[in-house]
Amino acid sequence: MLAAAKVRPETSKLVAETLVCAELWGHQSHGLLRLPWYLERIATGATDRTAEKEIVIDGGAIAVLDGHNGIGQDIAHTAMSEAIRRSKAHGVGVVSVRRSGHFGTAMYFTRMAAEAGCIGIITTNASPAMAPWGGREKKIGNNPWSIGAPTRKGPMVMDIANTVVARGKIFNAIKKGENIPDDWAIDSSGAPTVNPEEALKGLIQPLAAHKGYVISVMMDVLSGVLSGSAFMANVVGPYMPKGQSGVGHLVIALNVNAFRPYEDFLDDMDVMVDQIKSTPLAVGFDEIFYPGELETRNAERHQIDGVSLPTETVEQLNKYADGLGARRLT
Amino acid sequence: MLAAAKVRPETSKLVAETLVCAELWGHQSHGLLRLPWYLERIATGATDRTAEKEIVIDGGAIAVLDGHNGIGQDIAHTAMSEAIRRSKAHGVGVVSVRRSGHFGTAMYFTRMAAEAGCIGIITTNASPAMAPWGGREKKIGNNPWSIGAPTRKGPMVMDIANTVVARGKIFNAIKKGENIPDDWAIDSSGAPTVNPEEALKGLIQPLAAHKGYVISVMMDVLSGVLSGSAFMANVVGPYMPKGQSGVGHLVIALNVNAFRPYEDFLDDMDVMVDQIKSTPLAVGFDEIFYPGELETRNAERHQIDGVSLPTETVEQLNKYADGLGARRLT
Repeated sequence: MLAAAKVRPETSKLVAETLVCAELWGHQSHGLLRLPWYLERIATGATDRTAEKEIVIDGGAIAVLDGHNGIGQDIAHTAMSEAIRRSKAHGVGVVSVRRSGHFGTAMYFTRMAAEAGCIGIITTNASPAMAPWGGREKKIGNNPWSIGAPTRKGPMVMDIANTVVARGKIFNAIKKGENIPDDWAIDSSGAPTVNPEEALKGLIQPLAAHKGYVISVMMDVLSGVLSGSAFMANVVGPYMPKGQSGVGHLVIALNVNAFRPYEDFLDDMDVMVDQIKSTPLAVGFDEIFYPGELETRNAERHQIDGVSLPTETVEQLNKYADGLGARRLT
Repeated sequence: MLAAAKVRPETSKLVAETLVCAELWGHQSHGLLRLPWYLERIATGATDRTAEKEIVIDGGAIAVLDGHNGIGQDIAHTAMSEAIRRSKAHGVGVVSVRRSGHFGTAMYFTRMAAEAGCIGIITTNASPAMAPWGGREKKIGNNPWSIGAPTRKGPMVMDIANTVVARGKIFNAIKKGENIPDDWAIDSSGAPTVNPEEALKGLIQPLAAHKGYVISVMMDVLSGVLSGSAFMANVVGPYMPKGQSGVGHLVIALNVNAFRPYEDFLDDMDVMVDQIKSTPLAVGFDEIFYPGELETRNAERHQIDGVSLPTETVEQLNKYADGLGARRLT
């Protein structure tokens, strides 16, 4: 479908891979569900499929990358590749990204870093989803951030948004016709709601109250303000078919081997994983997972058993496939 | 008292300043209350007041600093100074710190960066305070982290620990005979509890459930594992009079002017602050604060009105002053 929408072949392949990875990891809210939104923005030109990424500052350990409103996955992939490359020369590589777009799942890029022997950090801003603490108007995105590190068992990786839940899970609840827990959001009148449609019209709460608020503001400073991109209420989200996104990112790669011998680091990561896994279980738990372990295990299972897509997602994708003259899913 | 305990004059002055700053900012839990703990560890030699910090890797944009079990504030101050200095040459400066000690309030060091025109990031690990998600044994510290950025109105700064609540709030609930929310703590079997007495026998939960768990683990990877310091259950806290701390930190400074013109950045930070402050208020709020604003305002007020110390803290400090032959507070 992306190729049929005249997205460059290598970018089509990358976007497809990131969406399928999200499905494999069990993050369906960041999976194929999102493709129609991307296609809409490409169709209107809000996302420019012909954009040429440009390194506007090339400062050795650091760089500033202007995405020129292109496809977020492509821009973030270039940014992380550049950060890794620079970290191999300087110990650290930092790429500040302006005028990018929604890049999908942050974990895809920090896993890249981990696989290259680096600790990877990525932050992004996002369209307004929350109020500043004490306010009642959307001003701040959920501004996801991810940190990934290598272990001998695969990447250890966290990937969180600063809302109490990711926005995609509310879309998923709508798709599945389910209610949401009453502490996820307030409606436009300020009352707690279990209705996901009302939640989308209202406000999602920050995680851990004021703590999620201050984290999200600082992630916007790192992502939007440092890069000279849009920030706060001026970021346009992937759900809007029109309007340049203005999303910014910060990408950091730390080359582990520049700080200490890589095998020593991996030995200690083994010890850390063992300490986590061997902790006595709390009531109601069968196993303790290190960050990212569940995703790795889901991917192993899904690669054998396949991934189940909700009927609505399949129907929606086929509608777009028909419109573009691309192959249907079923 | 620090000078009487034979701590070097410049280090005594720095530790005193960080403790008084915490009082001025309204963070009394990180203020003078902590001095007796530091003095105990210095007296036993667990904290080595004669330690010579050593840059063991000097890699241009990055460095590894070995604190040789010295005084945490002194080591973190050197690390942030080095990170800032390196960022002025390379755009970014990263200092990984091993064998440090409790450094007090993280915000002190990120404010240093902001005042030098940098975005500062500091992470630390800490003695075990939480179980991995799904476990019931202390394995992970609350691992505080802070990000600070310059604005024309003073630093914008966040500084949080990854537990949902401070232990003192559970003591307060016992005093008042109140239940606690069910996401604050687990009892000794690992089941969530609303009974504060049971909570004290059990464990404090991470903030935002599994999210705080994964954040805290990754902060330990950055702080303890990358630096080759202690990590997880092997970190010794400041409340223990004996045992080398083994605390590690990661310190990052991003020189704003290397990414975009500094005045443009400050212009955008003004816009960000205005967007936050002008948000319509939610019921029950009088004002919205940007991250760090409350501390700046508290400090302005306290510098005029003075700081009130609890009687218990004064008595405790005077006991140590007498023991060291130092001047009493009152």
